[in-house]
Amino acid sequence: MPTDTSAEISIFKRRESETRSYCRGFDTVFTRASGSELTDEKGRRYIDFLAGCSSLNYGHNDPDMKAALIEHISSDGLAHGLDLHTDAKAAFLEAFDQQILRPRSMDHKVMFTGPTGANAVEAALKLARKVTGRTNVIAFTNGFHGVTMGALAATGNGYHRGGAGMALNGVTRMPYDGYLPGGADTADYLEAMLNDRSSGVDAPAAILLETVQGEGGLNAASPEWVQRIAALAKDHGALLIIDDIQAGCGRTGGFFSFEEMGITPDIVTLAKSVSGFGLPMALMLVRPQHDIFGPAEHNGTFRGNTHAFVTARVAIRKFWTDDRFQRDVAAKSRLLTAALEEMSELLPGSCLKGRGMMQGLDVGSGELAASICACAFENGLIIETSGSEDQVVKVLAPLTTDNETFLKGLKILRDAIRGVTDSSKFAAE
Amino acid sequence: MPTDTSAEISIFKRRESETRSYCRGFDTVFTRASGSELTDEKGRRYIDFLAGCSSLNYGHNDPDMKAALIEHISSDGLAHGLDLHTDAKAAFLEAFDQQILRPRSMDHKVMFTGPTGANAVEAALKLARKVTGRTNVIAFTNGFHGVTMGALAATGNGYHRGGAGMALNGVTRMPYDGYLPGGADTADYLEAMLNDRSSGVDAPAAILLETVQGEGGLNAASPEWVQRIAALAKDHGALLIIDDIQAGCGRTGGFFSFEEMGITPDIVTLAKSVSGFGLPMALMLVRPQHDIFGPAEHNGTFRGNTHAFVTARVAIRKFWTDDRFQRDVAAKSRLLTAALEEMSELLPGSCLKGRGMMQGLDVGSGELAASICACAFENGLIIETSGSEDQVVKVLAPLTTDNETFLKGLKILRDAIRGVTDSSKFAAE
Amino acid sequence: MPTDTSAEISIFKRRESETRSYCRGFDTVFTRASGSELTDEKGRRYIDFLAGCSSLNYGHNDPDMKAALIEHISSDGLAHGLDLHTDAKAAFLEAFDQQILRPRSMDHKVMFTGPTGANAVEAALKLARKVTGRTNVIAFTNGFHGVTMGALAATGNGYHRGGAGMALNGVTRMPYDGYLPGGADTADYLEAMLNDRSSGVDAPAAILLETVQGEGGLNAASPEWVQRIAALAKDHGALLIIDDIQAGCGRTGGFFSFEEMGITPDIVTLAKSVSGFGLPMALMLVRPQHDIFGPAEHNGTFRGNTHAFVTARVAIRKFWTDDRFQRDVAAKSRLLTAALEEMSELLPGSCLKGRGMMQGLDVGSGELAASICACAFENGLIIETSGSEDQVVKVLAPLTTDNETFLKGLKILRDAIRGVTDSSKFAAE
Amino acid sequence: MPTDTSAEISIFKRRESETRSYCRGFDTVFTRASGSELTDEKGRRYIDFLAGCSSLNYGHNDPDMKAALIEHISSDGLAHGLDLHTDAKAAFLEAFDQQILRPRSMDHKVMFTGPTGANAVEAALKLARKVTGRTNVIAFTNGFHGVTMGALAATGNGYHRGGAGMALNGVTRMPYDGYLPGGADTADYLEAMLNDRSSGVDAPAAILLETVQGEGGLNAASPEWVQRIAALAKDHGALLIIDDIQAGCGRTGGFFSFEEMGITPDIVTLAKSVSGFGLPMALMLVRPQHDIFGPAEHNGTFRGNTHAFVTARVAIRKFWTDDRFQRDVAAKSRLLTAALEEMSELLPGSCLKGRGMMQGLDVGSGELAASICACAFENGLIIETSGSEDQVVKVLAPLTTDNETFLKGLKILRDAIRGVTDSSKFAAE
Repeated sequence: MPTDTSAEISIFKRRESETRSYCRGFDTVFTRASGSELTDEKGRRYIDFLAGCSSLNYGHNDPDMKAALIEHISSDGLAHGLDLHTDAKAAFLEAFDQQILRPRSMDHKVMFTGPTGANAVEAALKLARKVTGRTNVIAFTNGFHGVTMGALAATGNGYHRGGAGMALNGVTRMPYDGYLPGGADTADYLEAMLNDRSSGVDAPAAILLETVQGEGGLNAASPEWVQRIAALAKDHGALLIIDDIQAGCGRTGGFFSFEEMGITPDIVTLAKSVSGFGLPMALMLVRPQHDIFGPAEHNGTFRGNTHAFVTARVAIRKFWTDDRFQRDVAAKSRLLTAALEEMSELLPGSCLKGRGMMQGLDVGSGELAASICACAFENGLIIETSGSEDQVVKVLAPLTTDNETFLKGLKILRDAIRGVTDSSKFAAE
Repeated sequence: MPTDTSAEISIFKRRESETRSYCRGFDTVFTRASGSELTDEKGRRYIDFLAGCSSLNYGHNDPDMKAALIEHISSDGLAHGLDLHTDAKAAFLEAFDQQILRPRSMDHKVMFTGPTGANAVEAALKLARKVTGRTNVIAFTNGFHGVTMGALAATGNGYHRGGAGMALNGVTRMPYDGYLPGGADTADYLEAMLNDRSSGVDAPAAILLETVQGEGGLNAASPEWVQRIAALAKDHGALLIIDDIQAGCGRTGGFFSFEEMGITPDIVTLAKSVSGFGLPMALMLVRPQHDIFGPAEHNGTFRGNTHAFVTARVAIRKFWTDDRFQRDVAAKSRLLTAALEEMSELLPGSCLKGRGMMQGLDVGSGELAASICACAFENGLIIETSGSEDQVVKVLAPLTTDNETFLKGLKILRDAIRGVTDSSKFAAE
Repeated sequence: MPTDTSAEISIFKRRESETRSYCRGFDTVFTRASGSELTDEKGRRYIDFLAGCSSLNYGHNDPDMKAALIEHISSDGLAHGLDLHTDAKAAFLEAFDQQILRPRSMDHKVMFTGPTGANAVEAALKLARKVTGRTNVIAFTNGFHGVTMGALAATGNGYHRGGAGMALNGVTRMPYDGYLPGGADTADYLEAMLNDRSSGVDAPAAILLETVQGEGGLNAASPEWVQRIAALAKDHGALLIIDDIQAGCGRTGGFFSFEEMGITPDIVTLAKSVSGFGLPMALMLVRPQHDIFGPAEHNGTFRGNTHAFVTARVAIRKFWTDDRFQRDVAAKSRLLTAALEEMSELLPGSCLKGRGMMQGLDVGSGELAASICACAFENGLIIETSGSEDQVVKVLAPLTTDNETFLKGLKILRDAIRGVTDSSKFAAE
Repeated sequence: MPTDTSAEISIFKRRESETRSYCRGFDTVFTRASGSELTDEKGRRYIDFLAGCSSLNYGHNDPDMKAALIEHISSDGLAHGLDLHTDAKAAFLEAFDQQILRPRSMDHKVMFTGPTGANAVEAALKLARKVTGRTNVIAFTNGFHGVTMGALAATGNGYHRGGAGMALNGVTRMPYDGYLPGGADTADYLEAMLNDRSSGVDAPAAILLETVQGEGGLNAASPEWVQRIAALAKDHGALLIIDDIQAGCGRTGGFFSFEEMGITPDIVTLAKSVSGFGLPMALMLVRPQHDIFGPAEHNGTFRGNTHAFVTARVAIRKFWTDDRFQRDVAAKSRLLTAALEEMSELLPGSCLKGRGMMQGLDVGSGELAASICACAFENGLIIETSGSEDQVVKVLAPLTTDNETFLKGLKILRDAIRGVTDSSKFAAE
């Protein structure tokens, strides 16, 4: 394996597509990762407040998952099993049934889609259209659901939409909770549009939403709003799809982001942290009455990542058998809120965004947010932005981060904010 | 882990979506896999002529890849690295550069898409549209490119298209090599359509094709036809996209299925066997002048499956450093042709389809083909069908299958054909 | 010619499509029409407050247009001239130039589209997309722009949209002036959506609106709102298209409905009353810099109804040479407002809608509105409804209606309202 | 009215859109028209072999229609009647019923669409989709059906398609009779595509075709081919739509172009010559079982051009009460064929196209065809081209042209061909 950095960087420049992205902001070559820390080839360690965009909610290389996966591979467990029955899948389903679905009284069927979040969203939209015989899907401002053509139509981000190279159809855009100027109720507006036979909004197959918009800038919907939307979906014969790809798997406290909201989505999409270990895996939960795809009607070669089943089973058994993990996340979330509030005072005009362990600071400009992240990286913290102008500094630490590391990371962030503020003051003088 | 079969089967019935598919034809619970064999929970062993639909060209749990992967995991190598630079990715790119691209004089850039074939196709279509500023894509009868909305528009299969729940746009369908009645030249027809300003076929962004249509029934295009299509693409300002997801990675002999054809595609999509180990991984090769996506313009959380980089590197170094593997595959392909020719004589009206290690027998009806596969499964062989009526029995054995096992598998298949033929003769009498 | 009513009615039932519509509410056979009156085959006379849905702003068979048309036909003037130069077209263009465009400082070119309003809208949308290279068009709730596929995508009415039999693409729906609950400013909302790069609203080719929504329920936008929208269009590189098909040609006072608003649309569509005589004619006004269609790029056999040029020229010279007609319409509009206010008092909960000679009464329910119209018809008045629930009784009298006839018609309407109110009171008791 | 030419031409340049087209090739101002002749403002007379693109099959200002129209206008007959019952409509329907539909055993209902051919096609496509619940429509290479978005999707012409400014969806393009290289049967190919569940051609709502492609280059389908297509439509649950807008109303001999073919279309679209006088009028014939649009579901203000009803009735009663007119057209068609054969000999490589009174000469290049038309115009003949390269000189004389005038026109055409041939020979020397 090559050890010379410049050689390694050069192969990326020479052969990897210009589409590469995160490596531009964090320009080093990573070699090892454990818990909440990454190490680069020079041995430098970084606290990880990005966590694979919430794909590593349980941190890097969790020792129990790691052991189980090595055991599985060592004993010639299947790596690739199409959608055949395997013991690994059975064990995952049993765990998911017992620890996740049944305690929450969810009768949903589990559909393993291609192992990307976008694929789960594609499956969800296709299914909702098939179930209802309708085409139109309601999606919201600043929503992010992936970049394949079906999912991209529902994604708000203009940069990604521009990548399509053609018009994106089948989606009506509505304002998310809090979007309307003057604070008008966006659920009222949606209701008016759906009730009005001449509004131009066709009867929807589905209403698709994230309860917290991760990429869209950590906009958190109120429970009341989500309930209103759920009721509107029901009243108008549309399926309610909760895209819990980023906000699920513990990120906002419960396993699902909507647990405290008193709603039962018709479809839930999960990906990112569902494998527990960062392995590609995605699934869709669907109520039995809507589970009407024929065999392989939505298919894909990798719709059964057996390695991921192994780690996902361990994750569920380890973290979701009792409520200790959840209480821990709740405590850490409060700590995060307090820390961000303190930082916000350093930056007049900034404000807190988000919910649970998916909070951040809207600093008002993408340029400023980028400076803060760059400064943090210099000091050993990996952290990213989100929002339509990349103006929100987003803390997505592993949920398992120990308090010492967490506080250390937050301190680096606070210092970065202070540094940037000082230098801009300096510049202004 | 549960050991009782009925319990395991019951969790699938209870919780897994009705979309599950292969498990219906091969109704047992698999627990172990090695080389060209699968083992179920009862200890029964099966020869695998399905090979993860060509995702396991090097067999199950190749010992060298396995060792490297365990070593990587044990030493806390990254499991999930977004698109950050990692040593594992660098090592893969170096190997791919040295063993695959440079020897074939290919200057293509490597873009890691979401780890499904469909995602690579979506990226390819988006990029071709962006590069050309055109919308229309030419795809062919019986082509299969995935089931997310962008890829599905290019897929011919009506059952999968029906799953979309809405119209699929942006693709013009043209007849594949040999499709026209009376043997008229389909390249001539395409040329006429493209040259005719009133044909109703808009100037294409891309022409997308498989050189052998795996799902479409093992239709193999002639090199001359592929060359004609490549020339037409060039003349009409369209990108030539070769979807090598099923036919690539050695399946037809060379690493790419088009190597002997004297063409240079603008874009190549790879997935399935590219990780070598059956792990989810997909990529797109694109000529540098067309590598114009901005950073993360096409993105996805799992567009960097580090475990897959590890095994993919080993696969390339192990199998593609010299031509031994290729010669082996060629020899096995001839053996396969001979065996299928013999079987064809048992079934009047049947005919051989395909190329290389992607050959099969068109037995004329889906019902008959299904009987053959069911009978083979009873006798310890896993084999599947393809084609518009599922009428083609398709041999997709691992390329690394030793001759003894291969012949054993072929014997089971021949016996199944004979059995089915006899019983239908019997029924007819 | 048949004289027996039942015979005539029977041919309609036997041979005319079930799509026929107005004849169901006004179930008699009309034979003659003059000024503001229609006569049926039994000699019964009706005051016409429908005026061909505003296609007969100058009444039926205006004597000067009639004379000019007969003279044209008698002397073998062309009836059909494709888009050849004819003296009739030249004379119309001269009149339109001198009396309409120049006095309003409009430098627009005149494009004769197919002779339907929908065709003019189709041409406008196509042109805006071609000019900007963008696809998305902003249209508004309750807008009505025609039922051919391009125009229908912009039309809000769900009943008509349902007739498409397929998804309607390329349009983003936004709330019209006053549509948002709680009175939030819809221009603010549109501005927020257009400024937000992640709103999911793609950069628009055009913003398309009616200043008064005729079919949508006589919703009248404020001048300030229209100015805001015009400014937003300009700021965001979109063309402003005013669909003046129903509200133009004097219906709201000026020749164009937007004259007093201080805006210059990039494109204006006209149809309905532009021929003056009820003959099929439509046109599109487009600023010279956007007049980029090639010869016949948008074409149609009837894009030059020479008879209509003759009557349109007379209409312009007769009514728009000085401001007498405009003052007259303004006076009649005030009279109409006063009469409707009086009627509104008879119907608690009802409210006035509209502007100029395109006003009506929102009576709260489609059933009630239908009863009123039916009762009016029995008493010799032809009047129709509009709105998403057909709940608005709409007065669209010819602008040339003499005061006596106008008051007579309004009296019949008032009596119908009173009658319906009484009978429902009676029913309630 | 202006009398100075330069003034008139200048108003067109100053105010008419650059989209104007025919006036560029025939650059004079026409003032009078009668029978088969046009007169310009300088008194120059032209023989008309364009006939309003087949909108003037009975010539200009037919005296009987003219008289009836003047009588109608003089006596205050309605000019605009929405879709109210009028005596004029009843009389037209009676005539159409008695002289056209009943003698041909057609039970179709008559739907009056907006008065353009494109509008009738839009209505037909919408209805077929609604009836079948399917989206896809099969249309053919070189077909021309109008330029509004729904119809344009079915139109083959690339120049017009380019005017859309966005992708055109919902149509699958198939090769017209004779289009395939090597003479392969295009009906066989369509059958293969429709029978193949993986062809990628979705089950069609309709198959839409012209029996002679007027704009597409006078391609005439054989009766056997049309029968095959009709049978395929029936077998596959699709509606057969014959677009008889250009080829109908006597142009190919019978009232409908398909009369001798032994088929019954589900829908027929008519426009152009259906009014008889060149007035805007279009209609759609639909079998009763498919007449399922609700009232006004497809609507439009001008869907009832009363003046056109008057002239259309006279046309039907005058020309279609017995078979004299048909025999006359047949004789003239033979004369035309003979004349074109003679001309073809002057131009090696040229060939005859078309059928009936819709024949022409494919001269191999658009430039040559344009020269011929320009030369003919100088000598007093108005004639135009069609085809994908405008390479077909198309004779579309009024069907009522007397033999003397017809021969005179043909002589001018022959001289033009000879002249162009001579001068190009001269140039070549």
